[in-house]
Amino acid sequence: MDDSDHTQQIQFANQEDKQEFSKFPTKTGRRSLSRSISQSSTDSYSSAASYTDSSDDETSPREKPQVNSKGSSDFCVKNIKQAEFGRREIEIAEQDMSALISLRKRAQGEKPLAGAKVVGCTHITAQTAVLIETLVALGAQCRWAACNIYSTQNEVAAALAEIGVAVFAWKGESEDDFWWCIDRCVNTEGWQANMILDDGGDLTHWVYKKYPSVFKKIQGIVEESVTGVHRLYQLSKAGKLCVPAMNVNDSVTKQKFDNLYCCRESILDGLKRTTDVMFGGKQVVVCGYGEVGKGCCSALKALGAIVCVTEIDPICALQACMDGFKVVKLNEVVRQMDMVITCTGNKNVVTREQLDRMKNGCIVCNMGHSNTEIDVASLRTPELTWERVRSQVDHVIWPDGKRVILLAEGRLLNLSCSTVPSFVLSITATTQALALIELYNAPEGRYRQDVYLLPKKMDEYVASLHLPNFDAHLTELSDEQAKYMGLNKNGPFKPNYYRY
Amino acid sequence: MDDSDHTQQIQFANQEDKQEFSKFPTKTGRRSLSRSISQSSTDSYSSAASYTDSSDDETSPREKPQVNSKGSSDFCVKNIKQAEFGRREIEIAEQDMSALISLRKRAQGEKPLAGAKVVGCTHITAQTAVLIETLVALGAQCRWAACNIYSTQNEVAAALAEIGVAVFAWKGESEDDFWWCIDRCVNTEGWQANMILDDGGDLTHWVYKKYPSVFKKIQGIVEESVTGVHRLYQLSKAGKLCVPAMNVNDSVTKQKFDNLYCCRESILDGLKRTTDVMFGGKQVVVCGYGEVGKGCCSALKALGAIVCVTEIDPICALQACMDGFKVVKLNEVVRQMDMVITCTGNKNVVTREQLDRMKNGCIVCNMGHSNTEIDVASLRTPELTWERVRSQVDHVIWPDGKRVILLAEGRLLNLSCSTVPSFVLSITATTQALALIELYNAPEGRYRQDVYLLPKKMDEYVASLHLPNFDAHLTELSDEQAKYMGLNKNGPFKPNYYRY
Amino acid sequence: MDDSDHTQQIQFANQEDKQEFSKFPTKTGRRSLSRSISQSSTDSYSSAASYTDSSDDETSPREKPQVNSKGSSDFCVKNIKQAEFGRREIEIAEQDMSALISLRKRAQGEKPLAGAKVVGCTHITAQTAVLIETLVALGAQCRWAACNIYSTQNEVAAALAEIGVAVFAWKGESEDDFWWCIDRCVNTEGWQANMILDDGGDLTHWVYKKYPSVFKKIQGIVEESVTGVHRLYQLSKAGKLCVPAMNVNDSVTKQKFDNLYCCRESILDGLKRTTDVMFGGKQVVVCGYGEVGKGCCSALKALGAIVCVTEIDPICALQACMDGFKVVKLNEVVRQMDMVITCTGNKNVVTREQLDRMKNGCIVCNMGHSNTEIDVASLRTPELTWERVRSQVDHVIWPDGKRVILLAEGRLLNLSCSTVPSFVLSITATTQALALIELYNAPEGRYRQDVYLLPKKMDEYVASLHLPNFDAHLTELSDEQAKYMGLNKNGPFKPNYYRY
Amino acid sequence: MDDSDHTQQIQFANQEDKQEFSKFPTKTGRRSLSRSISQSSTDSYSSAASYTDSSDDETSPREKPQVNSKGSSDFCVKNIKQAEFGRREIEIAEQDMSALISLRKRAQGEKPLAGAKVVGCTHITAQTAVLIETLVALGAQCRWAACNIYSTQNEVAAALAEIGVAVFAWKGESEDDFWWCIDRCVNTEGWQANMILDDGGDLTHWVYKKYPSVFKKIQGIVEESVTGVHRLYQLSKAGKLCVPAMNVNDSVTKQKFDNLYCCRESILDGLKRTTDVMFGGKQVVVCGYGEVGKGCCSALKALGAIVCVTEIDPICALQACMDGFKVVKLNEVVRQMDMVITCTGNKNVVTREQLDRMKNGCIVCNMGHSNTEIDVASLRTPELTWERVRSQVDHVIWPDGKRVILLAEGRLLNLSCSTVPSFVLSITATTQALALIELYNAPEGRYRQDVYLLPKKMDEYVASLHLPNFDAHLTELSDEQAKYMGLNKNGPFKPNYYRY
Repeated sequence: MDDSDHTQQIQFANQEDKQEFSKFPTKTGRRSLSRSISQSSTDSYSSAASYTDSSDDETSPREKPQVNSKGSSDFCVKNIKQAEFGRREIEIAEQDMSALISLRKRAQGEKPLAGAKVVGCTHITAQTAVLIETLVALGAQCRWAACNIYSTQNEVAAALAEIGVAVFAWKGESEDDFWWCIDRCVNTEGWQANMILDDGGDLTHWVYKKYPSVFKKIQGIVEESVTGVHRLYQLSKAGKLCVPAMNVNDSVTKQKFDNLYCCRESILDGLKRTTDVMFGGKQVVVCGYGEVGKGCCSALKALGAIVCVTEIDPICALQACMDGFKVVKLNEVVRQMDMVITCTGNKNVVTREQLDRMKNGCIVCNMGHSNTEIDVASLRTPELTWERVRSQVDHVIWPDGKRVILLAEGRLLNLSCSTVPSFVLSITATTQALALIELYNAPEGRYRQDVYLLPKKMDEYVASLHLPNFDAHLTELSDEQAKYMGLNKNGPFKPNYYRY
Repeated sequence: MDDSDHTQQIQFANQEDKQEFSKFPTKTGRRSLSRSISQSSTDSYSSAASYTDSSDDETSPREKPQVNSKGSSDFCVKNIKQAEFGRREIEIAEQDMSALISLRKRAQGEKPLAGAKVVGCTHITAQTAVLIETLVALGAQCRWAACNIYSTQNEVAAALAEIGVAVFAWKGESEDDFWWCIDRCVNTEGWQANMILDDGGDLTHWVYKKYPSVFKKIQGIVEESVTGVHRLYQLSKAGKLCVPAMNVNDSVTKQKFDNLYCCRESILDGLKRTTDVMFGGKQVVVCGYGEVGKGCCSALKALGAIVCVTEIDPICALQACMDGFKVVKLNEVVRQMDMVITCTGNKNVVTREQLDRMKNGCIVCNMGHSNTEIDVASLRTPELTWERVRSQVDHVIWPDGKRVILLAEGRLLNLSCSTVPSFVLSITATTQALALIELYNAPEGRYRQDVYLLPKKMDEYVASLHLPNFDAHLTELSDEQAKYMGLNKNGPFKPNYYRY
Repeated sequence: MDDSDHTQQIQFANQEDKQEFSKFPTKTGRRSLSRSISQSSTDSYSSAASYTDSSDDETSPREKPQVNSKGSSDFCVKNIKQAEFGRREIEIAEQDMSALISLRKRAQGEKPLAGAKVVGCTHITAQTAVLIETLVALGAQCRWAACNIYSTQNEVAAALAEIGVAVFAWKGESEDDFWWCIDRCVNTEGWQANMILDDGGDLTHWVYKKYPSVFKKIQGIVEESVTGVHRLYQLSKAGKLCVPAMNVNDSVTKQKFDNLYCCRESILDGLKRTTDVMFGGKQVVVCGYGEVGKGCCSALKALGAIVCVTEIDPICALQACMDGFKVVKLNEVVRQMDMVITCTGNKNVVTREQLDRMKNGCIVCNMGHSNTEIDVASLRTPELTWERVRSQVDHVIWPDGKRVILLAEGRLLNLSCSTVPSFVLSITATTQALALIELYNAPEGRYRQDVYLLPKKMDEYVASLHLPNFDAHLTELSDEQAKYMGLNKNGPFKPNYYRY
Repeated sequence: MDDSDHTQQIQFANQEDKQEFSKFPTKTGRRSLSRSISQSSTDSYSSAASYTDSSDDETSPREKPQVNSKGSSDFCVKNIKQAEFGRREIEIAEQDMSALISLRKRAQGEKPLAGAKVVGCTHITAQTAVLIETLVALGAQCRWAACNIYSTQNEVAAALAEIGVAVFAWKGESEDDFWWCIDRCVNTEGWQANMILDDGGDLTHWVYKKYPSVFKKIQGIVEESVTGVHRLYQLSKAGKLCVPAMNVNDSVTKQKFDNLYCCRESILDGLKRTTDVMFGGKQVVVCGYGEVGKGCCSALKALGAIVCVTEIDPICALQACMDGFKVVKLNEVVRQMDMVITCTGNKNVVTREQLDRMKNGCIVCNMGHSNTEIDVASLRTPELTWERVRSQVDHVIWPDGKRVILLAEGRLLNLSCSTVPSFVLSITATTQALALIELYNAPEGRYRQDVYLLPKKMDEYVASLHLPNFDAHLTELSDEQAKYMGLNKNGPFKPNYYRY
């Protein structure tokens, strides 16, 4: 890849900056220039709906002038003609994202984002399209790039471009394309962003490095990912965060719903789609009993697997015990297991030595947040044979014929091999929308140059917008009850430290 | 389709025969000639592994002479060159079918099927290949056709042909091809079958009609399907069954494992692969609480769906109550449901009137044994628009914009849209193998011209062969205990009427 | 106990009879005279409601003349004055036994038991009182004795006597009392039974031995227990059964509901009431995976215990695997277990050697049908100390201080230490009532001198009478559907061999 | 009750104090003098083990001089002779409280409480005895009173007195006795407390009012209850807290284990012991989906009940949806319910109007933290009849004969009608012990005059001490992993805001 020009552009301004970013876990000591793109930007990603993609057109979108039906050419997508198909995908997604639709309705009159100019960088899928179009409906102007070079649904990008969103994204961007798209969002004549919506921190990073003056107008950053939030806290610690930022990643609605409930479903889906494995009676070890591990364990046990757990934290370990899971060390059980699933966020949780001891046919996969949990690199040695049996499924074959079935090469199973329900994404997207509204409308002084969690009351509002999906009927406090409990009738209903 | 010649061949010999077969449920009063192929033979079927299929070769296999590496041409498959890929699929299947492998080992010396000439007609998949190769290992000679025109895995058929099995089958046969293949298995010079292994009854039917004299040498029929077993009971009732037959369909290992446990897994898999729906909090009605319904309900409840049940049988209804499912009439709840799943084996369980009342986005699918449960025909009216959004997924759109999401056009969801675990198929395949051995080796007089269930002791043997997959350790009765219980130490352990 | 006179009365008439009965499992080779009372008659039994019992009155009821408010003295109970309290207990039980109440209403006009003279021998509890009063409401005359010397609720017996049922029973009968009560039911002037309702076979046995001529008028026997049914089959085999008998024990409503669902609840209840043990995280081995074992495993797993299973039958073992329970030999795990629960019906399933290896604090109890499963006798050796810590709870203490917690001395935990829900008893009682009606009204020739199961249609009727408790709404077949399925619209809906 | 003298003693010193305490929810506006005893002090309480209580001895312990076997008379219990029985109860409790035993062993050498003089006021049960004896083993001197007038296990108090603990407590104290006992603990010559361990705040309150100077020596207060903690926060807010206090109630080990897991077990136990109700198929509404509600719902659903939920908080409501519970308003469902269970902590959650609409036989009970949730007072009207059918079970009978079954008169079901597993109490007791150690040994300045939560690392230590009960094996971080995660290898492993 020739990214010589481009890498110059994004070189860190000085050694200190480099220092600051390199604190974030990376596998190599030296942060090579080409790594300035965040790792999450290149994670493989299963895009459910790119049905119409034909591989016949190899022309780069950057070189292909396109115009939408209203005559605008302020976008860059694979093929604007796919707009209709993308529209249908968006409509299907809307069915499970009615919270955003109802947010549009509730804010119809006041337009709480009137005047907002949002530059965004997220996955570009039917679900994020519903978010973007909600922002537009609330009054915002939007310019958008993709946060991952593989994850864009081209049809959806076309549909967004067709209705006038300045979207710059396609599936299979090069790294140079990646930064070019982001740049086109930020650096446009006669338009200056006053809000940032980021997923992974690359957009924020780019603005910091290339257009620091833009921050003078920015009223706030909304960041969703672990990685991006980590970067923001680093900036804040270093005194370099120059606008308020909202940490959506650690909101209760994200942690408890996206992690627990979503993984409860996607672990089964991911394993079935890749291996058709039967769960009943299978012996499984789940490494880590946080929200992700809890979701995985619950689903697998429910379908008849015999599940044990490894933990480093005695509190989580005790929860596992009370929930009926034997707490073991991986070494004690690895030889008997039919599946090994990592959910720790840590590195080398499954080592080569343990892989050597697994039995024939053992399935190994990762549900944690990075691809470091299984020491996949250690498997790339001459005595082992790799056989790709299906997409995302490798048989690693030992000299004695033993096969270990490795999924998604140790990357996230649920991003690579299953889909994420629109409903769960709706919770996160609604949180992002409300965070934008909050930061954009907050009276001066409410937020400083720091990283904030969404106020509990808005968390509760996000949840309440999703209750109609279940036809759930909330009970209202009587005046007498509110007084007895010392609560406002409209919430918040819990102290900040409440654990749910 | 020109099947003029062929249909003559399979016309019913006389009116009485016609009568006998037409007792079996059919949708049309008049059994048209082209319906002489059993309905199950044309059900759509998701073949998991036809990875190498290329659509470029449109030549009919019947017109393409092929030779395997040993020089034999006594087979007819899509492409013999796919044998290596098919072999790998078979090897993968073997990992979850170790019962058959261990059956091969246990019977290595004695060859209980030495001299057996088995003509078979089943789905031709990696799993049935493991069965066929087991029969060969036990001493049998095999000739094989497909029982379904869509379900053949061409690579697997190639692999079987390569090792010398006379297999006649490919994916996408015409009905004429279908009968031609069967005929090639039965009607071959210098070889006369003495055993029949059938799935659906088409092979048995063909032999009855075309080569009745073959039955003089046949020692028994092993039949797996509901349909085929029904046909055999009809024959028996009519006094026309001229050899013993073994009903594998109603063996406990099939009923309790294939139906209950398999559906527990495939309902989730089928729904996810087609719709990516989130299960948590969804309101679902399952029509029918037999083994299939029990499996569906258990899985959906375990993943957080709110499930209610319809039943006609008060005993099953009471079980549903005790298991925590509200028992309702479909009309009472259909308006609120997010999903409607049929598992009754009956017809018109979901009517047009009920489809009219469903809410927008309701998913409708069928897990029962035929495609009659949902009145799909009633949806093919001018005012409704059908939109195919994915393979096996149709949106049926009402004039007011309401969409009902119909899966697999009302055919079996788990055959069409999910895969069946090899392990579960292994239980059925082992039962088939043991039924063949039993019938082939039974002393004269043990079995008459009637339909039998596998002796309980052999059911227990099938189960015991599968325990090592789970590293399960069986307890043995002491002499004293066996005496106390009045049992033989080696079983059978339960009376015939035991319900498990 | 001086039972010299009495034992003469019930001595077996000849050696052959003795032979016949001694085939039934007994622990001692020689059937001592005092053992002619069935073992179940002396099992300890927790009677929930003997609230008003005062121990002040030591007079034997047999020596205390009593008269009810209508002047009758044809009964013998502890204290007729307790009738009012007993009436309330019966009323409470009626709330969960509405099937019997609705049976009374449906049969109000026709009185299907008009003319029936039923002699009964069952536990005398509020629940059986509801049954007896139902028989009376349907037209029967009843005389009743207790089938267990400990289980009578004296207040309930008083309430029955008060309304005119000739009941002879009290809590704490001697064996002599036991037979005297039965005799008073059978041997009464001017009244001759024509139906027998038995639980355990002692009444039947007594009539056989003492009043064989009574059988000339008897139209049938209804028997509920394993033991009694076993005796009937022995009689039938020996050609000595001289009237039709109905086996209620093996009806689907009893096997699936009483065993599975009832044990699912009573295992938890019995363990809590005796030991207050926490279930979460406990390691438990359940011996036997029949209906009882399935119920126990399901409940314990649901509350967070880690459960493994022992089995001798590979089919049940395979079910355990698929349900997510590790199948082990007791010896392999006994050292780690927190609880050992037997549900096999076998003997010496837990041996002294295994008790020796249990860890300190291990709880051992029996849910199977007899008290033979745990080798309790082996614990009565000098080096072990027994300490009774609560009613039904013994600590058996090893020389090194290790304690094993033995419940109910190895007798049935759920009879001894928990209560059985009225609703489950209602299912069995309704089956008994319908069996009486069926035998009493059957046209001559329908039943011979053999043991029968209740016709499936009546099983279904029993179930249907219980659905209103759950507000369950049954779906009715349309004519078209019934025809398609080849079913009568009113059932039966399943073949006899259906396993549910 | 003549408490004239005593009430003077505890009158609030001034109006402001009165103000401060009366902020805490009370049902009456005027806080009568006799209410100065906290409500929790008079809650009914099921004491599992007072087996030896004989009602023959009516002498007040205060008037009965007693001496233990070592000659000490510095205690006041019901009957010192019951010590041996109490010792056995303590030993039984120790089996499930091995964390405290292992704490004794680990701290054997250093005696971290050497010099500590602890005055305590808790329930006096076998479990708290294990705590008290642990404090003694760690070097503390202890004086102890009961925090509830009904909950003392007399035998356990005797056993404590026998080994030299100055315990003043018996079952059935008058309010005067209650304060006398506390006073005897605090006000003793030659001994001045330097630590307070309180449950409910009455002891703390007494010292504040009567012996404020004692606080000069007090190094800290450890408080366990909701009520007591509330009082402490009030004091702190008012600037009147003069020593550091540790809030044990809100530690994760208490909230997540005591509330969630304990209620999961005790809801079933409490319902069974009082009503013998069958859970299968029952329709239940649980009011409140906090930890307590989650525990109740999980257990009831697991045993086959059909459960719906009411909530005021949309986040908890959304969790209920995702967990598979329909979220409803009580009014919508109250007519159909078989059971209504409150877990809100609020008042009048179940109103008379709703009680009027319940169906016959509906069971109503409270699992929340106070007796205000069900408006029981509203049921004490002339047209309703109350019938006490068992201990803690009232039938409230409407004029039309409808009965509502009210448990424990609306007080806490699990305190009144079930037992709490020793293991769960062990977690709380260990937290109390560690809180004492922490406060007693903390370097000056670490804690100020404020209310603290136990440091996360000590929470983790509490959990780790309980893992051996489950034979759970914790995984240790490698140096490399700890560095990657930015964690200390010994914890703490989670940020303070982690929700578990």
